[in-house]
Amino acid sequence: MNIGIIGLGLIGGSLGLDLRSLGADSAENATPEGYRKPGRVLGVSRRQSTCDRAVALGAVDEADADLSLMAQADLIFICTPLSAIAPTVEQLVDHLKPNAILTDVGSVKTPVVRTLSPLWPNFVGGHPMAGTAESGIEAAQFHLFAGRPYVVTPTETTPPAAVREVVAIAESLEAKVYSCPPEAHDRAVAWISHLPVMVSAGLIASVAGETDPEVLDLAHKLASSGFRDTSRVGGGNPELGVMMAKYNREAVVRSLHTYRQTLDEIADAVVREDWGELERYLTDTQKARSQFNL
Amino acid sequence: MNIGIIGLGLIGGSLGLDLRSLGADSAENATPEGYRKPGRVLGVSRRQSTCDRAVALGAVDEADADLSLMAQADLIFICTPLSAIAPTVEQLVDHLKPNAILTDVGSVKTPVVRTLSPLWPNFVGGHPMAGTAESGIEAAQFHLFAGRPYVVTPTETTPPAAVREVVAIAESLEAKVYSCPPEAHDRAVAWISHLPVMVSAGLIASVAGETDPEVLDLAHKLASSGFRDTSRVGGGNPELGVMMAKYNREAVVRSLHTYRQTLDEIADAVVREDWGELERYLTDTQKARSQFNL
Repeated sequence: MNIGIIGLGLIGGSLGLDLRSLGADSAENATPEGYRKPGRVLGVSRRQSTCDRAVALGAVDEADADLSLMAQADLIFICTPLSAIAPTVEQLVDHLKPNAILTDVGSVKTPVVRTLSPLWPNFVGGHPMAGTAESGIEAAQFHLFAGRPYVVTPTETTPPAAVREVVAIAESLEAKVYSCPPEAHDRAVAWISHLPVMVSAGLIASVAGETDPEVLDLAHKLASSGFRDTSRVGGGNPELGVMMAKYNREAVVRSLHTYRQTLDEIADAVVREDWGELERYLTDTQKARSQFNL
Repeated sequence: MNIGIIGLGLIGGSLGLDLRSLGADSAENATPEGYRKPGRVLGVSRRQSTCDRAVALGAVDEADADLSLMAQADLIFICTPLSAIAPTVEQLVDHLKPNAILTDVGSVKTPVVRTLSPLWPNFVGGHPMAGTAESGIEAAQFHLFAGRPYVVTPTETTPPAAVREVVAIAESLEAKVYSCPPEAHDRAVAWISHLPVMVSAGLIASVAGETDPEVLDLAHKLASSGFRDTSRVGGGNPELGVMMAKYNREAVVRSLHTYRQTLDEIADAVVREDWGELERYLTDTQKARSQFNL
C-alpha cells in the first residue's frame, strides 16, 4: 500500500518518518487486522524546496508540488492547515484511485467531515493530538504520535473498511486510538484545548490593562510559575487561536458561556465572603482535575 | 545579631538553613551596608517534634515551642500561615528586646502591615516569593530564595533602619529585592498569583460540569499540555486559594471584575465572528506575555 501525505510540515513530515520506517509492503508484513505495512510514501507540498527537504530528511520516498503524484497512493493523509483542507480535496479528487482512502489531521472535525464526505465518500476524519512548539518539515520527528491520542471520527456513512485501515495505521504509530462522532470530538477539544486559549488570553489581557504603572511593573517582575503556566496558551500563536474559534465556533461559544457562569459563581463567593463555599469549589476542582489524563 | 524564626515550615526552615550557613556574627563580617552576618538562629514551632527536626536538619541552632526564646533575637521572621501572624505577634511582643526588628513572609501584605505596625512599630512587611509543591520542615532547602523576588513593603511610618536590615538579609540570600507599598504588592500578586487560581479553577469546574458523559470522558482522555498547564493552579491546595481570596479580597474582586469584562470582549468577538478583532486580541496577548519575567 502506498501512502500519500499532502502538507509536509511537523505532522505530515513526522507521519512520513514513521510510516517509511515501518518497512516495505509485503504479504508477510500483514497484521491480523489486515493492515499491510506501507509501500512507498509519497509527499506533496506547494513549495518545491519543502519537497526536496522532505526527501532529504527521509520523511518521504518521493515528493512533488503537483497533486497528480497522489494518483499512485492508496491512503492519503491531508496534513494542511484547516483552511486549506477543503480546497485541496476539491482539486485532489480528480487524481485519486477509485478506492483510495482519504483522511485528515485537522484539529476540528465537524466542518471538515461535513465538507469532505460528499466530495469523497471514502473519507475518515482524524485528529492525531501530537504537537511541539515547533512547526515545519525541519521539526518532523520519529515517534511523535507514540502514546498520544489519535481520534478518528467516522459517521454513519463512513465505510467501515476505510475506518479500519486508518485505525490500523494509527495503531502502528503506537498512538492511543479513540473513535467518536465529529461533534463529540469538537466539544471535547473546545473544553480541553480551545477554551483554555481564550481563558488564558483573557488573563494576560486583564493584567496588561492595569493602569497603575507601579502595579504593572511589579506584576511583570513578580510573575512566577503560576502565571507562567496559566498564561502559556494565551500567549501562543494568534492564527492558531483564531482558527480554533472560527472552525469550532459553536462549541467554543458554548464553552465560553458555561465558563462565564462558573466564574461568576466563584466571584460571587468571594464578594459574599462565603469562604466555605469557595473552599468547596476549590476542593471539587482539585478532585476533578485528578480525573484528567495529565 | 541573633535571628529568630517563628514557624519552621518550608520557608522558615529554608531561611534558617541559609542564614546559619552565612556564618557567625563578627565585626569582620559586616557588609558595607552594616548588615552583620547572623549569630545564632533560634526557632519556634508549636510542635516540639518540629523543633527537634529543625535542629537535627541544621535549620536552627536551637528551637523551642515557647515564644520566650525570642527574647534573645535581634531580628525575627514570622513564618506562620497568614491567619496565625497577628495572634502570634500579639503574644510575641511581651518577649521582645526593645529594638528587635520584626518581619513576616506572608503572601498578602496590606492587612498584615495594617495589623502589625501598631503592635510593633519596628515591623517591616516582607514577601519572599519562593515555594515548592512541598511544605513542612522536611521540604526546607538551601538557596530557596536565590534569584527569586523578595518584596519588602515599608510604609511612611516604617523605620528606615529596620528596612535596611531586612533588605540586607534578603540580599544575602541572593534574592531579587523589590520595595513597594503594601497595596501595590497586593494588587500585583492578585494579578499574577491569585486571579490565575480563580481563572484556572473556573476552567476545571466548567469542564467537569459537562453533562454529556461521552464528551466528558473524551475530555478526560484527550487533555494534554494546554489543559494541564492552564488548570494547574486551579487544582492546587484549596485552603491556600481561600486564604488568598480572604486576605486579598479587595484586589481579587477587582481583578475578577476586570477579567470578566475582558473575557466578555473575547467572547463577543467569537460570537460576532469578528476574526480580525480576535486576532488583534491574541496578537496583543502574545506580545504582552513577553513583558513578564517568566
